[in-house]
Amino acid sequence: VLAVPAGGFAPEIGALRARFGDRPLLLAGMIGSNRGWREAPYLDCPADGRAVAAGLLRIEEANAAIVPGVRDLTHGRADVMRGEEVQLIGAVAMGAVPADGRACHPGTHAKWARLEGGAIAAFKTVMTGELFALLKQHSILADQLQGGVAPDAAFRRGVGRALAARELAADLFAVRARKLAGQLADADAAAYTSGLLIGGDVAIGLDFLSQGGSIALIGASALTSLYAAALDEAGQRSHVVDGEEAFLAGIRAIAETMQ
Amino acid sequence: VLAVPAGGFAPEIGALRARFGDRPLLLAGMIGSNRGWREAPYLDCPADGRAVAAGLLRIEEANAAIVPGVRDLTHGRADVMRGEEVQLIGAVAMGAVPADGRACHPGTHAKWARLEGGAIAAFKTVMTGELFALLKQHSILADQLQGGVAPDAAFRRGVGRALAARELAADLFAVRARKLAGQLADADAAAYTSGLLIGGDVAIGLDFLSQGGSIALIGASALTSLYAAALDEAGQRSHVVDGEEAFLAGIRAIAETMQ
Repeated sequence: VLAVPAGGFAPEIGALRARFGDRPLLLAGMIGSNRGWREAPYLDCPADGRAVAAGLLRIEEANAAIVPGVRDLTHGRADVMRGEEVQLIGAVAMGAVPADGRACHPGTHAKWARLEGGAIAAFKTVMTGELFALLKQHSILADQLQGGVAPDAAFRRGVGRALAARELAADLFAVRARKLAGQLADADAAAYTSGLLIGGDVAIGLDFLSQGGSIALIGASALTSLYAAALDEAGQRSHVVDGEEAFLAGIRAIAETMQ
Repeated sequence: VLAVPAGGFAPEIGALRARFGDRPLLLAGMIGSNRGWREAPYLDCPADGRAVAAGLLRIEEANAAIVPGVRDLTHGRADVMRGEEVQLIGAVAMGAVPADGRACHPGTHAKWARLEGGAIAAFKTVMTGELFALLKQHSILADQLQGGVAPDAAFRRGVGRALAARELAADLFAVRARKLAGQLADADAAAYTSGLLIGGDVAIGLDFLSQGGSIALIGASALTSLYAAALDEAGQRSHVVDGEEAFLAGIRAIAETMQ
């Protein structure tokens, strides 16, 4: 959404129209945010496909509609999502997540969701990907974090540390101290630090989710494989659901409910 | 130390000599690091004033000595300090911290220290100040974090939240969600977020310190007042020790032991 300048959405829609013809448009994600085309107010949890379809922001003159985001204000919490609700609805429609299942969206702002009766009952966002990017680009650890990240032994060591102690801000400084003490090679530092962050994310997510079956990891493979390894370290089963497939299935389910 | 270019320390020392004459120089802090003038290897915990004096890196040709940093590798941990050890030795020498006391250095990399028999027995560093700066300068929260930070009600709310739940990376995203939900004014966001970070720091520090008397907050007033408020929220007493006074007292104590 940041790639489109203010006032630039109408021309972008026009370009889509020129390419695909005058079909109805169903849009979701940050295009419905206060930085997007039109602001589609959040629906409160619990929200299912029917509620989302009923809450669409219709833009009649453009033959378009925007999916509302979902907000979780239950139990004194405050959380928001835009776009992931479509994937969750789609994953349930595909049969990839049970109606009372558990899901995780790895990412810049990773999300853990509880489904109840096919509805998004509650969710929690963790700033994992953004924190890693900040540390890699701008922090005292930046020089150490330029290596690759894979679900290897160094990554699992970081996950194990994060699951054993809830003190991320101290463990991050120890990345530097362990280098100075000869305990952490530069080649392992990025994977270990990613393990600290994703392991901490998993610890938060598992506190939040109810007990249940395999956790659906909705997204693309590089990141879902890291979360799968971290969940495995925590003794939890998971399975991967392709994020694009889930999104398309969700958009189809919402469109069918509209008609 | 970053303000002095590579090879620039000898001229800097020369400038000090020109101004103050040929007195013995006793230096401490990052000047002894691998980015400094000469690298003074770390001493292991426990370390007292006598051990530090015995471990000085002597630079005879310059009539100078550099205080070694201190390293904590006890119990599988890894942590380092350079400069704070002089303040801790000084605070004990001044009578501002008991020989078996507890201390905290607020800062970019905040440190919690346990003293035993006047020696630095163990310590833990938390990346609190650096994380706040990263969030304020570069994160999705940056626009929200340009306000002032004081030990006010918003700050204490953040501290209370951090003491109640160990999930900083989720609470940080909620700063944005609470704004969108109309629960957090921009004017309060910096103080609330600082409270989350310092409250989380205090939770880590109190886990690490043994039970004991008032915690010495060693540093300058803007930051020590925030830590005092956070410790008060956690039901702990604290007292402020001026960081420059403690440093000078520590350097004097080490110099006396040298002679």
